[in-house]
Amino acid sequence: MKKHGGLSIALGLASSAMSAVGTPLQLHSRQSGAQSIDYNSAPPDLATLGNGTLFNTWRPKAHVLPPYGHTGDPTGHYVDAATGIFHVGYLWTSSDEALSGVASATTSDFVTYEDIRLPDPRYIEPGGLNDPIAVFDGTVIAEGYQGLPTFIYTSVSRLPISWTIAYTPGSETQSIAVSYDGGLNFTKLDRGPVIPSAPFGLNVTGWRDPFDFKDADFDRVTGSKSGTRYLLIAGGVHDVGPAQFLYRQYDDDLMQWEYLGRWWRESANSTWGDGTWAGRWGFNFEVSNVVRLNSEGAGADGSLFSLVCTEGGNYGVQGLREQQWAAGDVQIGKQSEKRDNDGKPSSGECLNSDRNLDFKLNMAGVLDAGASAYAAAGKLVPSTSRPSQGSGAPDRYVVYLWLTGNFFASIDFPVAQQGWDSSLLTPRELFVRTISDVVDNDAVRETGSWRVVSSDSSAGTVNLETLGQAPVREAISAYKQSATRQITEPGVTLSGFANTSTVPFTESSESRYFVLEASISFPDEARDADGVKAGFQLFGSGFERTSVYYQFSNETLIVDRTQSTAVSATTEGIDTRNEHGKLRLFDIKDSQSGRTRIESLDITMIVDNSIVEIFVNKRFVLSTAVLPWYDASKMLSFFIEGPVSVEFSDVEIWEGLVNAWPARGQ
Amino acid sequence: MKKHGGLSIALGLASSAMSAVGTPLQLHSRQSGAQSIDYNSAPPDLATLGNGTLFNTWRPKAHVLPPYGHTGDPTGHYVDAATGIFHVGYLWTSSDEALSGVASATTSDFVTYEDIRLPDPRYIEPGGLNDPIAVFDGTVIAEGYQGLPTFIYTSVSRLPISWTIAYTPGSETQSIAVSYDGGLNFTKLDRGPVIPSAPFGLNVTGWRDPFDFKDADFDRVTGSKSGTRYLLIAGGVHDVGPAQFLYRQYDDDLMQWEYLGRWWRESANSTWGDGTWAGRWGFNFEVSNVVRLNSEGAGADGSLFSLVCTEGGNYGVQGLREQQWAAGDVQIGKQSEKRDNDGKPSSGECLNSDRNLDFKLNMAGVLDAGASAYAAAGKLVPSTSRPSQGSGAPDRYVVYLWLTGNFFASIDFPVAQQGWDSSLLTPRELFVRTISDVVDNDAVRETGSWRVVSSDSSAGTVNLETLGQAPVREAISAYKQSATRQITEPGVTLSGFANTSTVPFTESSESRYFVLEASISFPDEARDADGVKAGFQLFGSGFERTSVYYQFSNETLIVDRTQSTAVSATTEGIDTRNEHGKLRLFDIKDSQSGRTRIESLDITMIVDNSIVEIFVNKRFVLSTAVLPWYDASKMLSFFIEGPVSVEFSDVEIWEGLVNAWPARGQ
Repeated sequence: MKKHGGLSIALGLASSAMSAVGTPLQLHSRQSGAQSIDYNSAPPDLATLGNGTLFNTWRPKAHVLPPYGHTGDPTGHYVDAATGIFHVGYLWTSSDEALSGVASATTSDFVTYEDIRLPDPRYIEPGGLNDPIAVFDGTVIAEGYQGLPTFIYTSVSRLPISWTIAYTPGSETQSIAVSYDGGLNFTKLDRGPVIPSAPFGLNVTGWRDPFDFKDADFDRVTGSKSGTRYLLIAGGVHDVGPAQFLYRQYDDDLMQWEYLGRWWRESANSTWGDGTWAGRWGFNFEVSNVVRLNSEGAGADGSLFSLVCTEGGNYGVQGLREQQWAAGDVQIGKQSEKRDNDGKPSSGECLNSDRNLDFKLNMAGVLDAGASAYAAAGKLVPSTSRPSQGSGAPDRYVVYLWLTGNFFASIDFPVAQQGWDSSLLTPRELFVRTISDVVDNDAVRETGSWRVVSSDSSAGTVNLETLGQAPVREAISAYKQSATRQITEPGVTLSGFANTSTVPFTESSESRYFVLEASISFPDEARDADGVKAGFQLFGSGFERTSVYYQFSNETLIVDRTQSTAVSATTEGIDTRNEHGKLRLFDIKDSQSGRTRIESLDITMIVDNSIVEIFVNKRFVLSTAVLPWYDASKMLSFFIEGPVSVEFSDVEIWEGLVNAWPARGQ
Repeated sequence: MKKHGGLSIALGLASSAMSAVGTPLQLHSRQSGAQSIDYNSAPPDLATLGNGTLFNTWRPKAHVLPPYGHTGDPTGHYVDAATGIFHVGYLWTSSDEALSGVASATTSDFVTYEDIRLPDPRYIEPGGLNDPIAVFDGTVIAEGYQGLPTFIYTSVSRLPISWTIAYTPGSETQSIAVSYDGGLNFTKLDRGPVIPSAPFGLNVTGWRDPFDFKDADFDRVTGSKSGTRYLLIAGGVHDVGPAQFLYRQYDDDLMQWEYLGRWWRESANSTWGDGTWAGRWGFNFEVSNVVRLNSEGAGADGSLFSLVCTEGGNYGVQGLREQQWAAGDVQIGKQSEKRDNDGKPSSGECLNSDRNLDFKLNMAGVLDAGASAYAAAGKLVPSTSRPSQGSGAPDRYVVYLWLTGNFFASIDFPVAQQGWDSSLLTPRELFVRTISDVVDNDAVRETGSWRVVSSDSSAGTVNLETLGQAPVREAISAYKQSATRQITEPGVTLSGFANTSTVPFTESSESRYFVLEASISFPDEARDADGVKAGFQLFGSGFERTSVYYQFSNETLIVDRTQSTAVSATTEGIDTRNEHGKLRLFDIKDSQSGRTRIESLDITMIVDNSIVEIFVNKRFVLSTAVLPWYDASKMLSFFIEGPVSVEFSDVEIWEGLVNAWPARGQ
């Protein structure tokens, strides 16, 4: 059921309860009220604790999340045209579920943020004629209607909505709101939806989360004027498959959007290749982005990428939802889906349409292998933006993902006791990542999350491209520069055995707030050896531990959470399932020496109390939540298993991070 | 502003006030409360009287109107498939404006009716997600969704709506409701509108009042399956003109309707011919019907007619709205309205549509020349229906019109004092009316409300066809058979003079409830004489009189209301403007004698207290309201003016009519 996870939406309450805004901020001291919590003893059943008593227990400090309540999808970001300040938005529901809508904060540096308003950080709420029940994700056009920030969003009038049940036509529409006050409020225009229904004749599985973009190739392929603005709506068609529906702007005021067809469609629950390197496409798409990326960041000269959330794939630990990406070209597609004998358009596209678009993929992958990471919503951040002016960054695409705290509301996490749940992840920059001088063997030629862009047959190598990802540069830079403590852990080469070995760092961080960087090099023998695993243990103590390691045999990065928290023994809804994601380490040929080696595993880990984000080789990310209970559970260790020697090097820790919300006073 | 006239719509009150239904029926005695009204003295300012004090003063007895409150458009009629009983519907607003919706009554004979429920006669009310503000006209498919009576109607979420102002997109949608209890209630299906918006890209002036039909010619021209059901929606496009939008059924459940284009479009405020014989097309169409008629009634073999309401014509006394009809053929139209250079469909029709429909008119006229008669809503009544089984009528098209009591709410009639306002008119049967042996002169060859269907050049004659209209046969038959008194007024030939002469009937009716039939024959000299007028005076006394006469010089039937009521001298909002409508009397050649004569004026007048309906020659109708005050104002007279002798013959009066609402006990 929409919206993916979080608190269930309080039907009809939102508008009427608006006057009763209150904030439980005062409850959120670490030890609130009469209940004293002892983090040096075994935990009680957390569900028995008072509301808000766990507010600080696992709360991140450097991430974007609301002052209290539920965080949903990131959505509605924009760069203010006048100030260059970045506005980050997210779906929000108050702890008592009385309030919901899109909340927002501003940032000049992607490090610290300021709520647009407290205690109610929303810029829009449901309760209008178009959206009596809920406001779902949308897209902000910074200079839209009358040159003002304009939010085009999914307005919801009926629930439930899910690809697993019959779709109620009209439950989702796309509506428009405009900000006259620099983003503090988005005022709904007094008119019906700008796109009043899913395409005629299509029995959709979903139809939501509009995303706007411009693209010269789309102009060409759709026969549109140069500079045309497009709108992407995610969804799918029952018994057919997931899709992204494409619309283009029809009038200057952004009030009409012309349907152009499903520019990207996949067969229901099909896969890219054999499904190894990207997840299943599932049955319904959600939150979708389109962007052109180059090696530096974003640019019109770049390659076409789409980010997409898939529902129903049911593939591995990713569960029912996956955050994927794909790259390829937009082109005129096949004409097969035309009228049937009845004279009905069998595709349900606009009648007699002679235009049939197609997204010709050349690679696809997983944007975040964490099963709880979802709903990536990015925005073009030009070099002229305030953050980029400070950092010198080029034009780039900055993406926020959502980390659901109760696995899409499918588990009964003690949300009330925590007083908040879920968070956005550290924003990322996307770019095209080139892997050079890769030995041209079978491993390269799979239908993968990479593509061969050039080959040198004399050297026997190829150059690959894939989607590159890195934590937003300003944040990493700030976490390093502002570190309260920096630890350089001496490099070490460890030989594993049949059983796991852990070797404590010479010096661990004193808190659960840090950035860890490290490089792990595997010997060639690792390819043929059994059971080679190497990585780290986090949050370690005699009671708890979390292992993050690469398992060579199946090319998988794993986060073993089975022993990560003592709480799982006492409390329902604590997700300790392993996380894992596929990552291929290629053989790289040194062009000078001609020697071949396995590329190293270069890790950047952001650890923010309970949030663990693992960036590897600028092309793989796995984000997850880990919930250690004991104060003692802070030890860092090397982790090794298997009969080969693995080299750990360049191990550095910057402790402290930065409080992202200095104005909140929490 | 929609809805044409009547009480303003009580925003948001309808649903919440539902539990407070009350009826003021008990107030409605002729002399209610402490205020005694003397109809033998000059009237007071009626606006000073208590609520409901005038309830019976002008209330009709034989017409369809609610037990109290405001009558709006007739709408949502149907013949129950199981019982054959006819359900007549109408928009209704309670006197306190707290309740609104579609009310309904049943009839087995078009003479007496029974409310489906008292005191609240509605089968549907606004207040749902699709129609938070109002329910406008719709169409009932007797065997629709799951074989049940199904109402497809205009669901309103925003007001005001008017062709004179910018259209608020989304203010009108088309929704669906189903009756599970034989028409007592129509339950809205829990889904969005079945047609969620006006056609893409069109800046409509209005888009409402769906009407369903089937037609083999439409099947052929639109390339549809035989027996396809169509939906007509009335409206128009700003700066272009009025139109009827055509849709066809797409799924068995009636949930999807495929847009086929504007099958009938007129240029803004253009006319049929020079505008003499039909009104202006205005700027927006409302309530539209499509039906095939033959000489007996309705039939698939018949000629194609459309009834249409036009807004904005501003032509003569018809004021801003006209009830018109047209006949012609549906055909493939010109391809002119395609894409412009931008690649936008300039017509705004479905993209790339290669189908362009056209209604090729061959005649058009006015359905009712009364300025307050509007919103004709008809239904096919098969010979198997209960009324037709009783009367032996063939398949026919029975039409109800609305007679607004305060000129579309533009005048301040003392509605509260009356406790009700407006009424439906006596239902009519429509058919093709042939006029044979018409001398083939210039008068015949105008672009008129008739068409030449055959000619006999040797005889110098033609046969014409036009739309035929007659009061529904069961009603006229019952009024005659049940008459409390029947008067045969002797025929008389009267010579007029320069001034008007009136000659009282030898015996007038004793009440204002009667049917009058008469024939008036003009001599050939009437064509060249000045100032020839002949007709009747109604509601006569020393204080008041109303003249109904044909004025030869401009071929116009006139109802002179200027002296019709003493109330106009004391009270605002009493409409005493003249009514008039164009009617051409042709020269008919007797095929036996070869002699030519002007066809006679054959009148059937239904007089029901204040409602006067004048049917002439089975092809002209003028309905109006006349509001005599004095009890004495009941005298009937012949009316004559001009220097020729006019023969009045076959003058008969059937007094009494029939109480249409025996179960109400009023």
